[in-house]
Amino acid sequence: MEGREPVVVCRLSHRPGRDDRMTTHVGLTARALGANRVVLPDNATGPAETIEQVTDRFGGPFAVEQYDSPTAFVRDWSGTIAHLTMYGLPVQDVEADLRAASAESPLLIVVGGEKVPFEVYERADYNIAVTNQPHSEVAGLAVLLDRLFEGAELDREWTDADRTVIPKETGKKVVDPDEQP
Amino acid sequence: MEGREPVVVCRLSHRPGRDDRMTTHVGLTARALGANRVVLPDNATGPAETIEQVTDRFGGPFAVEQYDSPTAFVRDWSGTIAHLTMYGLPVQDVEADLRAASAESPLLIVVGGEKVPFEVYERADYNIAVTNQPHSEVAGLAVLLDRLFEGAELDREWTDADRTVIPKETGKKVVDPDEQP
Repeated sequence: MEGREPVVVCRLSHRPGRDDRMTTHVGLTARALGANRVVLPDNATGPAETIEQVTDRFGGPFAVEQYDSPTAFVRDWSGTIAHLTMYGLPVQDVEADLRAASAESPLLIVVGGEKVPFEVYERADYNIAVTNQPHSEVAGLAVLLDRLFEGAELDREWTDADRTVIPKETGKKVVDPDEQP
Repeated sequence: MEGREPVVVCRLSHRPGRDDRMTTHVGLTARALGANRVVLPDNATGPAETIEQVTDRFGGPFAVEQYDSPTAFVRDWSGTIAHLTMYGLPVQDVEADLRAASAESPLLIVVGGEKVPFEVYERADYNIAVTNQPHSEVAGLAVLLDRLFEGAELDREWTDADRTVIPKETGKKVVDPDEQP
């Protein structure tokens, strides 16, 4: 994961209240599964705060950015663009190409909202489906990131964490990493 | 995927209103990524209806079951139990064992809610973490299913669908499968 081109996840739209948990989960999934940053609309204030709090507690680096128009952010992106949509090409058919492209230039992964402008389908280098079935943008993002990084994201190390979970067969163990041997 | 032991996803708890979309996404992700059934609490009426509507339209087989106490359902399960929790063992370390166990007996994957009784940690054969970071039960379930089935779930065929999405490089194409050549 070190030294690779950045991977940024962009949530196109957000309805305060109704979408709060989904947008939060998109951002936390992006963070946990190896993306460098998440881009949210300006009105996703609550989710942005929650994601930043998690990064403060459990470590980074991971950045949250907010823009008035994420669609304009997509329009202006100069690297590769992948758009997650149930109408796209099967992830298993395009993941090798996507991995090659993301080794050459920064990758923007676009996660839709309720109404995705047709411009985004046209602007994307890859419209990608994690199955052509309706399910969850969070699930699609998770499978895409795990396949893109081929599992390497699961071994990521975190810096500046206040707390660290120690894997356990049964129960819960959380420690302060500064007090770890 | 044919002829294998059943894989069932169980959502332990649900708060009507607040959890509607997350519980719906757990069920739709279970369906799209190869599970046979989802078990929900009795009070998850809205999510159960939505998941059944999607199955009616986009095909099955996939079953939704509701119980007064999903925890009792877990207690009585006679096959293997995997519990998704950020405090568990890394998925990459246990997935081979889980795959072997699920070849021998039906597998129940438990997806928590807000407060998971300690009994569930003790009852589980595997407490599994998709990273030890806080993110999303939907993301964790998606990665676990994709790894359990090693991608075979992405090629699943659906029966009795009213509509089928045809993968496209750009745009959307939905057809009535009865009118397909």
